[in-house]
Amino acid sequence: MNLDANGVKDEPLFDGSILTEVDFTLCSSTYNPAITPTNPGENLKLRPLCKSDYEKGYMELLQQLTVVGDVTYEQFEDRFDKMSSCKNSYYIVVIEDTLTNRVIGSATLAVEQKFIHQCSSRGRIEDVVVDNTYRGKQLGKLLLDLLTLLSKHVGCYKVSLECKDKVVGFYSNFGYIKEEGQNYMCRRF
Amino acid sequence: MNLDANGVKDEPLFDGSILTEVDFTLCSSTYNPAITPTNPGENLKLRPLCKSDYEKGYMELLQQLTVVGDVTYEQFEDRFDKMSSCKNSYYIVVIEDTLTNRVIGSATLAVEQKFIHQCSSRGRIEDVVVDNTYRGKQLGKLLLDLLTLLSKHVGCYKVSLECKDKVVGFYSNFGYIKEEGQNYMCRRF
Ligand SMILES: CC(C)(COP(=O)(O)OP(=O)(O)OC[C@H]1O[C@@H](n2cnc3c(N)ncnc32)[C@H](O)[C@@H]1OP(=O)(O)O)[C@@H](O)C(=O)NCCC(=O)NCCS
Ligand SMILES: CC(C)(COP(=O)(O)OP(=O)(O)OC[C@H]1O[C@@H](n2cnc3c(N)ncnc32)[C@H](O)[C@@H]1OP(=O)(O)O)[C@@H](O)C(=O)NCCC(=O)NCCS
Repeated sequence: MNLDANGVKDEPLFDGSILTEVDFTLCSSTYNPAITPTNPGENLKLRPLCKSDYEKGYMELLQQLTVVGDVTYEQFEDRFDKMSSCKNSYYIVVIEDTLTNRVIGSATLAVEQKFIHQCSSRGRIEDVVVDNTYRGKQLGKLLLDLLTLLSKHVGCYKVSLECKDKVVGFYSNFGYIKEEGQNYMCRRF
Repeated sequence: MNLDANGVKDEPLFDGSILTEVDFTLCSSTYNPAITPTNPGENLKLRPLCKSDYEKGYMELLQQLTVVGDVTYEQFEDRFDKMSSCKNSYYIVVIEDTLTNRVIGSATLAVEQKFIHQCSSRGRIEDVVVDNTYRGKQLGKLLLDLLTLLSKHVGCYKVSLECKDKVVGFYSNFGYIKEEGQNYMCRRF
């Protein structure tokens, strides 16, 4: 654990070296300009979520996705520590604009361990969001390609997601399909 | 950790007392005969998955659901320990026939931690199966009602599942709905 320039405790949610183990050339998308996870664009950096991202607008970014509510740093850190203690389960990546020190994109790969399929795992892509002033720069695509490859890299036999009608087209670019006869059902409290 | 009668190491996946904290009278189903999680029927016992369930046919039961493959006890135990070390994440319940010492039903509540919705969690019902010779005895219903209530009890803001067309009717009994405009997409490796 380190202190960053503002004295905020810093710590990544997971060891970022796993992101460099993913062979990004395996993804079938074409990028123009040719950005990659290690070079996501000028003044942009892609990396694991860190504790200091609370100060860098991570929660505000999530508000562009859904209801977040007021979350204090202590609550954020408590949740962060709980996720981090579940080994190999939560891969939240963010893209930071290093000029403004703001988090401008994020996506989560959540891994559920299984007994079926020879004690395999399944991945789920969750909470994909790119700040509205940064959309259309292939960053959503970059996050999706990376996490999809990562899910395979960590041993998932499948990866899935739920999404609204308007982004079905977006996700189908990454090999996600609506399987015939398969239904998603939900109960809210 | 204890040794059971056959010297198999025994240990529950989670502390079973949480199942008794769930107020089962809150479920809207009617049971006839009136079985409950503490009284699931003659010679039946509902409880957390234990390590000894490897010897009691848990993996064979899962084969009625999907591909399981050959899994040694060591592989099973390793997976069990990894799930168990992720606190408050994996609630796998089983129903045992205490006459035959066989596991004849099981269902999983997997809990994913979130930052959204005030650092809430979401639940997922997974791997629901009742042995085919025990179907039609309200055991699937019992498992679903219990895990749905449990998901709320542990703080999930929603709980969801994916299922084949033929069991949509079964799951709709427990308040699960197919939400308009919401899509499930999947990519297999
Ligand atoms: C969906 C989202 C993450 C896309 O991010 P983005 O960085 O703007 O997307 P990209 O620039 O990487 O777009 C990549 C490709 O997907 C396409 N695309 C982007 N959004 C799309 C959409 N909503 N529907 C269909 N295609 C879409 C782009 O046209 C582009 O296609 P191209 O490569 O053929 O030019 C972003 O719009 C967003 O954060 N939306 C709000 C939150 C949200 O809806 N998240 C999904 C929750 S289910
Ligand atoms: C689905 C399953 C778990 C149901 O278990 P069960 O113990 O036989 O079900 P119950 O006896 O509790 O049935 C409860 C109610 O659901 C109904 N039901 C059971 N299976 C159903 C189905 N496939 N479709 C619609 N309704 C169903 C019953 O008729 C009963 O209704 P009632 O209360 O009005 O009489 C069991 O059939 C099974 O293990 N199937 C194979 C595995 C599977 O498909 N799992 C689901 C994966 S998505």
